[in-house]
Amino acid sequence: MSQNDPGRTEPVHHRPFPEDDRPILHVCLTCRQRDAEGQVIETGEPRAGTRLHDALAAFVPDDAPFILRGVECLSNCKRACTVGLTSPTRWSYVYGDLDPEASVDDIIAGATLYAGTEDGIVPWRERPQIFRKGVIARIPPFPTASLSAAPAVAPARASEDQSA
Amino acid sequence: MSQNDPGRTEPVHHRPFPEDDRPILHVCLTCRQRDAEGQVIETGEPRAGTRLHDALAAFVPDDAPFILRGVECLSNCKRACTVGLTSPTRWSYVYGDLDPEASVDDIIAGATLYAGTEDGIVPWRERPQIFRKGVIARIPPFPTASLSAAPAVAPARASEDQSA
Repeated sequence: MSQNDPGRTEPVHHRPFPEDDRPILHVCLTCRQRDAEGQVIETGEPRAGTRLHDALAAFVPDDAPFILRGVECLSNCKRACTVGLTSPTRWSYVYGDLDPEASVDDIIAGATLYAGTEDGIVPWRERPQIFRKGVIARIPPFPTASLSAAPAVAPARASEDQSA
Repeated sequence: MSQNDPGRTEPVHHRPFPEDDRPILHVCLTCRQRDAEGQVIETGEPRAGTRLHDALAAFVPDDAPFILRGVECLSNCKRACTVGLTSPTRWSYVYGDLDPEASVDDIIAGATLYAGTEDGIVPWRERPQIFRKGVIARIPPFPTASLSAAPAVAPARASEDQSA
């Protein structure tokens, strides 16, 4: 149908951005490198977290199934460097103990696997080792079906089965 | 308007649940108590996480501005007990090092403060001390405005200002 087609009766809705619900890979820009005891061993700039972000920005493919974003502080300072994977329909994960250079390929691989799941739960054995050892926390997705007013007692069934 | 009113022309939409976007307070049911070195010191049932959940269920007011939910594992086993606060429009937070009895009142207070914010960020000095000392991680809300296809480089501006 051409733009001049007089049969067009529907209003035209302009969307400023394309629809996009790809997962987001958040990278903490403010993380400083620490030693095994958690003491800061870095005083210069740019910080390790910023270096990790910039290295990821250089290597994440243009057609990656996730979006890279820098963020100021993921509140995991003691186990820097830190990333967070999040999505409206998936469990969110935070990973720490990451290296600003050596972890880049595995972070991209892990984020790609995450994006390929329905619920964000990649089978344990398929996760990069840095994600298995460096998991900090996870949070269930906000339910799309509304909850009843009474406090819910049924647990969200998605255990972290480390044999899967 | 009675059900037999012949003037009714609109279809009737039944919603099985009321709209509800209150934040959710997730409580890890599978947390076991650990000592200061992170070693499990609890072998019995119910686990500390389940006891924390049940204590919260007993004390959360019916008109609380958040919803309580049990969850199997928030992947913060080393710093149990653990809760997570989440909302579609707010930063999500995970807190650990919680006590199944002593922390109940402060968790309810902290979750209530969280629900009273627009973005989930309670000023640092107003947070219960167990939240200040026990923060494990936080994750930005998924953006409601769609993102462009290119990797975003602008950080989410919401630093954890510990003087606020």
